Amino acid sequence: MLLTDPDKYFMQLAYKEAEKALSEDEVPIGAIVVIDKKIIGKGYNQVEKLNDVTAHAEMLAITAASNYLGAKFLEDCTIYITLEPCPMCAAALKWARIGKVVYGASDEKGGYAHISKNLLHPKTTVEKGVMEQECGAIVTNFFKQKR
Amino acid sequence: MLLTDPDKYFMQLAYKEAEKALSEDEVPIGAIVVIDKKIIGKGYNQVEKLNDVTAHAEMLAITAASNYLGAKFLEDCTIYITLEPCPMCAAALKWARIGKVVYGASDEKGGYAHISKNLLHPKTTVEKGVMEQECGAIVTNFFKQKR
Repeated sequence: MLLTDPDKYFMQLAYKEAEKALSEDEVPIGAIVVIDKKIIGKGYNQVEKLNDVTAHAEMLAITAASNYLGAKFLEDCTIYITLEPCPMCAAALKWARIGKVVYGASDEKGGYAHISKNLLHPKTTVEKGVMEQECGAIVTNFFKQKR
Repeated sequence: MLLTDPDKYFMQLAYKEAEKALSEDEVPIGAIVVIDKKIIGKGYNQVEKLNDVTAHAEMLAITAASNYLGAKFLEDCTIYITLEPCPMCAAALKWARIGKVVYGASDEKGGYAHISKNLLHPKTTVEKGVMEQECGAIVTNFFKQKR
């Protein structure tokens, strides 16, 4: 599937990261950073475990990718995220000048677009809706069980 | 000065953090998190050293404060920042439900208010202009010398 549908291939891996979060009772969101079809950063939400609101999947994946590259800018990279990034993560992706953002489900309340599309860099390409149903369901089911 | 002018007292300490950044050739911005007049988190910009766009002074100070408290929310805390926070840091402070933000100089181009004041939590108190001149000058002088 890497060759025929790379977006779905990498989103499935981001989804696996979200499942890791779920298994640790964290809000299940995952992210993968890819360059030239190679994974260079991964992350899943660890806010509760680390007691740290900055430990979102995307933030951890950005840090991992920059560590791998030894560079702070990720212009040639794509980040796959199961959920639309929040304003913090979108702004971090802008600082990183990420080339492309692909996300699964939209987040009407908490997503960056609700505040401003300018939170992302104007040169960043955005694609959404890859595995939308699964990526959305894992989060909504998580919160349903919490109630 | 802690008793007579606590805001200036803590901003001077945030400024000392900014000076640490300057000595490492980083954009000189510093932050201090305080609870009940006690410092529980410090940070200075380390984006270049760590090759990580998320390593802003505020982010490091939030993480340090949450580690200290063993809690992700900082409702009873005040963060002193030498410069108006960027959208990423403002959104992180919203996630942390920080009680109060005190910053020195405004950042007309890169500050959060330029995008949206909703990046901060509606319950967060904001105060600005403490040591405004010094906090602004250290950054503008840094960039002047870079040109």
